[in-house]
Amino acid sequence: MSDTASDSVSDTASDNDISRRRLLGAVGAAGATGLVLGAAGGAAAHAATSGDAPTALTTVGSATVAFHGEHQSGITTPLQARGHLIAFDLAPGAGHREAAALMRRWSTLAAELMAGRAAGDGDTGVALDAGPSSLTITFGFGRTFFDRTGLVTQRPAELDPLPAFSSDQLDDRRSNGDLWVQIGSDDALVAFHALRAIQKAAGEAARVRWQMNGFNRSPGATGRPMTARNLMGQVDGTRNPKPSEADFDRRIFVPSGTKYAWLAGGSYAVVRRIRMLLDDWEKLSPTKQERVIGRRKSDGAPLTGGTETTELALDRTGPDGKLVIPDNAHARISAPEQNGGAAMLRRPFSFHDGIDPDGTPDAGLLFVCWQADPLRGFVPVQRKLDRGDALSPFIRHEASGLFAVPGGPKKGEYVGQRLLES
Amino acid sequence: MSDTASDSVSDTASDNDISRRRLLGAVGAAGATGLVLGAAGGAAAHAATSGDAPTALTTVGSATVAFHGEHQSGITTPLQARGHLIAFDLAPGAGHREAAALMRRWSTLAAELMAGRAAGDGDTGVALDAGPSSLTITFGFGRTFFDRTGLVTQRPAELDPLPAFSSDQLDDRRSNGDLWVQIGSDDALVAFHALRAIQKAAGEAARVRWQMNGFNRSPGATGRPMTARNLMGQVDGTRNPKPSEADFDRRIFVPSGTKYAWLAGGSYAVVRRIRMLLDDWEKLSPTKQERVIGRRKSDGAPLTGGTETTELALDRTGPDGKLVIPDNAHARISAPEQNGGAAMLRRPFSFHDGIDPDGTPDAGLLFVCWQADPLRGFVPVQRKLDRGDALSPFIRHEASGLFAVPGGPKKGEYVGQRLLES
Repeated sequence: MSDTASDSVSDTASDNDISRRRLLGAVGAAGATGLVLGAAGGAAAHAATSGDAPTALTTVGSATVAFHGEHQSGITTPLQARGHLIAFDLAPGAGHREAAALMRRWSTLAAELMAGRAAGDGDTGVALDAGPSSLTITFGFGRTFFDRTGLVTQRPAELDPLPAFSSDQLDDRRSNGDLWVQIGSDDALVAFHALRAIQKAAGEAARVRWQMNGFNRSPGATGRPMTARNLMGQVDGTRNPKPSEADFDRRIFVPSGTKYAWLAGGSYAVVRRIRMLLDDWEKLSPTKQERVIGRRKSDGAPLTGGTETTELALDRTGPDGKLVIPDNAHARISAPEQNGGAAMLRRPFSFHDGIDPDGTPDAGLLFVCWQADPLRGFVPVQRKLDRGDALSPFIRHEASGLFAVPGGPKKGEYVGQRLLES
Repeated sequence: MSDTASDSVSDTASDNDISRRRLLGAVGAAGATGLVLGAAGGAAAHAATSGDAPTALTTVGSATVAFHGEHQSGITTPLQARGHLIAFDLAPGAGHREAAALMRRWSTLAAELMAGRAAGDGDTGVALDAGPSSLTITFGFGRTFFDRTGLVTQRPAELDPLPAFSSDQLDDRRSNGDLWVQIGSDDALVAFHALRAIQKAAGEAARVRWQMNGFNRSPGATGRPMTARNLMGQVDGTRNPKPSEADFDRRIFVPSGTKYAWLAGGSYAVVRRIRMLLDDWEKLSPTKQERVIGRRKSDGAPLTGGTETTELALDRTGPDGKLVIPDNAHARISAPEQNGGAAMLRRPFSFHDGIDPDGTPDAGLLFVCWQADPLRGFVPVQRKLDRGDALSPFIRHEASGLFAVPGGPKKGEYVGQRLLES
């Protein structure tokens, strides 16, 4: 990855990053035994010794992700414990000018909140005395945004509607939208605070179309920080491209030579609310579940052996002459080498919206994946899964969105400025 | 507090506490730089130095709360980041025998899960490679439980229905229930795992009546570990009785000389889903919000000055001759000294179930309070709040439950055994 600055997790404060951070420091100094130590997800843990100054401590709360940079935050940022997805439609009468003003307001707000500062005079106080806790706020534009703002000539073909998949059961009211915001933080109140602030800052310009809540593991809950586990109990994300890989940028981010210059450094987000039919899934024995996925449940290793990161031995047969990783196993069908090298960066949140009247959980995955081109990332893989994935009977795609996510803003810029002032 | 054993947070493992813990340890040993350090909420932070053995590390994940003891867990346990409340009704045809078998199953399961072990052969794997993360599972009996099990003679008058309050807008389908389970953990997947396991273990004996999800701050997100902040941005819980106070046990737990011996060491839980009308609340200026509450927003100190823990100067007037803490301020009306010393231990979770179609958030407080007698704890305070609380226009009680929570089980006992085998 050529530039990781926009997503590096650091505990250094910017010059004028004072208010909440200073409060946090003061509390810590006043009551050292009450100070809670933690490590930001994915970052190396810093040992805390009594000789260190309090400012040397890395805490879950003080971890900060940069707002400015080549790419927006929330794409390569390690998974956060709490997430909100929210889509807006521009209000009747709002157009290009209102959209530009809104993106400017939202960008100013996001920069403040991500640095751990308040949302201005009307701040609700919900995040007071917590640090930003790796807060990220990511903005994207849906296909209809370009109609509403008169910018259709700037709309890439990649935003054409996703093809219909035979297993889709999509709710249009929870799908798509002119604007999309992804909020993530390792603290649920910090995330909620940002959600309210973003919603309020929409003002008269845009109205909420849909909103979803999700979660991942809390920092420190597991010794396996790199790969998440989903609500089916499966290790999930093993084959994700790694920023250290040579072709990571090419696969995930739109290159600078793109036809639509405003999108350079950006990406496309595909969002799917994937309900898990857990009552059915959990009736399968662990052995059968592993054959559906093609990986071991305990550690995510392929059924052909090794560890989580061992390559799938797709051709290997067992004593019975059958493929060890079945023909329709999810891991086989979705493997990049089975899809012309198609790669997407999956960065989901789990969701759980309670229990339906019949006792079944309304739970599953807020699937969010990132790619330089959805027609080379999500679409071919999903088309293949749609035809023959052994996992299909146990999931249901209930909502869908596709958004163009501009590159990160330079200092003084707002997100989407290169589109809205082109 | 005479006995804190049942709720002490420790990182010591019991003899046969092996599977998940051992896995966690192995992962930590294999990749020390990936090991995430943290401190359990409320516990003193342990400095991690490179010379320590991995087992000496206190992590968020490995923090364990004891299942056995004088009191059940989840009452004096520090607030956890994630919570589930779930109520069940006994199934048609199920009675005393089925209830006893269910409580035995649930108790065995809770002891396993709280120690970080799997839920048996049918374990979903969702909590694999995480520690118990301060998991607690607490069981209570509603008024109707005693009718269903033929144990009406063992039903205390304290379980009589709560009085109706004028501001109640209760949904019966989300209120009460034969059985109530509170699940808390610092990790959302661990909590979900326990919820599914508890629901599955109900088998044919009981059916879900209602279920709610909540959250609090993540460990490490704030330097203020003792008092929570709610979604109105207010410090919440300052006046909670402290286990260090001489009369804590008397106020919170049913004494051993009680008429109903099965309830000795137990408590009563009042549960209220309190929706916050945040759009209205946030229209108030911070100054007006502070006058509604009677405390400063920044740090929870009384408007009459000092710090969060300073006593309210209820009689003090300002230069204008008016009370500094207004007559109808929430902190005044709910103050124990204004309610004959009535005290309850408030231990809530915030909730956020998305945004309604009109754009208003479905968010607020899953208020859970604990007391030795609800007629001396919750009821008189709520009656007074119902009449004159300045906060009333900004909240709505939408669901209610009252449950008798038996004392903690001894080793070899199940929760409620003293009732069900009396």
